[in-house]
Amino acid sequence: ADPVAGRQKAGMCATCHGPLGMGQTPDAPHLAGQPAIYLDAQLKAFRSGARRHEVMNVMARPLSDVDIANLAAWYASLKIDVVPPPD
Amino acid sequence: ADPVAGRQKAGMCATCHGPLGMGQTPDAPHLAGQPAIYLDAQLKAFRSGARRHEVMNVMARPLSDVDIANLAAWYASLKIDVVPPPD
Repeated sequence: ADPVAGRQKAGMCATCHGPLGMGQTPDAPHLAGQPAIYLDAQLKAFRSGARRHEVMNVMARPLSDVDIANLAAWYASLKIDVVPPPD
Repeated sequence: ADPVAGRQKAGMCATCHGPLGMGQTPDAPHLAGQPAIYLDAQLKAFRSGARRHEVMNVMARPLSDVDIANLAAWYASLKIDVVPPPD
């Protein structure tokens, strides 16, 4: 999979999920740093309708398996750090 | 919602999603820093079966609405940073 091609394909995703995969709206999850296997499976589930979301079912419909693999590779390539909470 | 109560409830979640909401297995998404509204909606979808996942449907079944709100508040309270990629 090609994260550079995925980044180019991700323009429409950024409206809700942010240019670096950090969600911009309360129901859009952060995608940055998620495992590629998870992202790939969810995009396929949105494409098939197995996972339902009004917007995502439409967005995923035209994606090929290669598009999905590339998008998953792009978001997975972004590294995130979690700030440990005070105990 | 009470993130401290959520943290206490999250012991079982940590097996797959990590003690600080960073997934430990390729099909377990990171939960740290996700919007509480998103997390709440997904846990309810797993509980009802509207979103399907063999493990999560079982884990979510016994959760009350308050449990779910607290778990969502706990994971949402964790702050994450994304490392910008080189251009």
